[in-house]
Amino acid sequence: MFAPLQNDSFLRACLRQPTEHTPVWLMRQAGRYLPEYRATREKAGSFMGLATHVDFATEVTLQPLERFPLDAAILFSDILTVPDAMGLGLSFQQGEGPKFAKVVRDEAAVAALEVPDLDKLRYVFDAVTSIRRALNGRVPLIGFSGSPWTLACYMVEGGGSDDYRLVKSLMYARPDLMHRILDVNARAVAAYLNAQIEAGAQAVMVFDSWGGVLADGAFQEFSLRYSRQVLAAVKTEHEGVRIPRILFTKGGGLWLDEIADAGADVVGLDWTMNLGQARARVGNRVALQGNLDPNVLFAPPEAVRAQARAVLDSFGPPAAGSGHIFNLGHGISQFTPPDSVTALVDEVHSHSRRLRASL
Amino acid sequence: MFAPLQNDSFLRACLRQPTEHTPVWLMRQAGRYLPEYRATREKAGSFMGLATHVDFATEVTLQPLERFPLDAAILFSDILTVPDAMGLGLSFQQGEGPKFAKVVRDEAAVAALEVPDLDKLRYVFDAVTSIRRALNGRVPLIGFSGSPWTLACYMVEGGGSDDYRLVKSLMYARPDLMHRILDVNARAVAAYLNAQIEAGAQAVMVFDSWGGVLADGAFQEFSLRYSRQVLAAVKTEHEGVRIPRILFTKGGGLWLDEIADAGADVVGLDWTMNLGQARARVGNRVALQGNLDPNVLFAPPEAVRAQARAVLDSFGPPAAGSGHIFNLGHGISQFTPPDSVTALVDEVHSHSRRLRASL
Repeated sequence: MFAPLQNDSFLRACLRQPTEHTPVWLMRQAGRYLPEYRATREKAGSFMGLATHVDFATEVTLQPLERFPLDAAILFSDILTVPDAMGLGLSFQQGEGPKFAKVVRDEAAVAALEVPDLDKLRYVFDAVTSIRRALNGRVPLIGFSGSPWTLACYMVEGGGSDDYRLVKSLMYARPDLMHRILDVNARAVAAYLNAQIEAGAQAVMVFDSWGGVLADGAFQEFSLRYSRQVLAAVKTEHEGVRIPRILFTKGGGLWLDEIADAGADVVGLDWTMNLGQARARVGNRVALQGNLDPNVLFAPPEAVRAQARAVLDSFGPPAAGSGHIFNLGHGISQFTPPDSVTALVDEVHSHSRRLRASL
Repeated sequence: MFAPLQNDSFLRACLRQPTEHTPVWLMRQAGRYLPEYRATREKAGSFMGLATHVDFATEVTLQPLERFPLDAAILFSDILTVPDAMGLGLSFQQGEGPKFAKVVRDEAAVAALEVPDLDKLRYVFDAVTSIRRALNGRVPLIGFSGSPWTLACYMVEGGGSDDYRLVKSLMYARPDLMHRILDVNARAVAAYLNAQIEAGAQAVMVFDSWGGVLADGAFQEFSLRYSRQVLAAVKTEHEGVRIPRILFTKGGGLWLDEIADAGADVVGLDWTMNLGQARARVGNRVALQGNLDPNVLFAPPEAVRAQARAVLDSFGPPAAGSGHIFNLGHGISQFTPPDSVTALVDEVHSHSRRLRASL
């Protein structure tokens, strides 16, 4: 049904198999820093217009691959499609983040929550299949979702937050309600990711973007537990092929040991974590993905290259059983000069080849 | 000159000496969650009107002590008084954070920076002396400043930021300029804290509020190095009395070992860090301050008490050479019900006394 894969370095690194270079992709690589993305976005009229239109979603997913020799593509979508399908009404205001028309803050709203009919997310699965076809085997396609906790943050707050006051108030005052939201979310996210895999996703990633705002103890109870529930229910292979699963908790470095045991093949790291120390802590339990500060990309090309080398050197020489996928520690900024990405990707490929040659 | 101290539990805990209970104070304890604060703020007309007026600053500093049996007072001021005295023009817009009229983003602006004439900060030192007199020995008075890096964030960005793009761009593109800013800031902060000590502050705290946004490596080079420079230049005693120095890096848990060696007597922790693990890591090198999530205070009193006990239990039994000061992991929210603070302070005192009795 799909063309055979020409560059499998990303999938191999996820599974801690040897690669000729360190594969690299960038969170939000299809995005506003690219003029061609802004042009397509203009045609689509709105972010959701873009994400829900199969041809547009396919077009923007492939745009960064035309410019940069990236080693993976990631579905163009949003982490909040699942609560939207639950009927909460997702929208994006110009210049602001996501907003939900309905919020989940009381007993009645929590009781009404259900795992959504996956047919409401058909546009996502259609986009996955369309993108996989359009990729034609160039690189693997990654599917994704927000984590149960991260979805809950938006569902309770109604949008972004700088203090997570409402969601944490509910969590501390009514942990029973919070657990019910998280259980529904976990079942929905697992079904959603499995449907993406069936539609053609070759790896999946759980974005626990807001796990790091939780207190020690609360993180384990309200975030990690439900990411683990998702990972336990998501396919590990499809049609005989392994499907790597990535768990990324922004600000989760302190809990790395526990995160590494959550059932993912790959743990994503932000830039606060020393990659060499992380590797020493997880051993060969999981591969690691990360972890350049996206703000490095505002420096001149030579500084970008030096910082890219520092990340690769920090991970250290590739060795049997280890795996590293180069990425940023957060989504690329809309203000990034595309030439910085050219320098970055080139340096990751060339320096990681040199590291292998010197072994 | 000043009345003798009646409750020295905070100072003793800072110096890892035995106390009868775990002392507690709250970051931003004099603040908008108190109706009496809002009334004084109304009279003063603006935040800076409040902070620069000795009588108003004294009044609001003492307000929380009238309601709650807190074990320390903290100077009512702002972390950004030093760059304001450098001529950058600090103001607070209604409903927004701090803003600087001038920003420091290019070679000329960096070259023009100088350690300010401390006379421009006379209003702070006068407030310290006035508050110390008004406290009349009830509890010790803490002075404070932003860290060199945290001040630099605001000086370059011109205000708050959610991505630190401008300050990090400067840091990665022109590290020489960033080092010059940080060196001026470190010298200014040290002189400022020493003048607060001379005016009557009995402990001082460095708020590295934004150290945690830095990448591993960059944190050590651009934040910790300059906090260390400050601590090396700040008095350790005054008129024969020890002056404890506290360093608080929000989001700094991953670097706890290095922070504990920066020269402070006390390390402040946010809620992401497990206090028992932190204690195991630092041993008796420093006392620890923290680390309840301020959002716990939105739960009912019994839940507040349970979470307070969990923090105390996590630190574990007091033992010779250890010290714990109970605090939040960040400033108290303006929406906090004051009754939650009553429950919190009572539980910290009573449970910590029970822990000592059971030894």
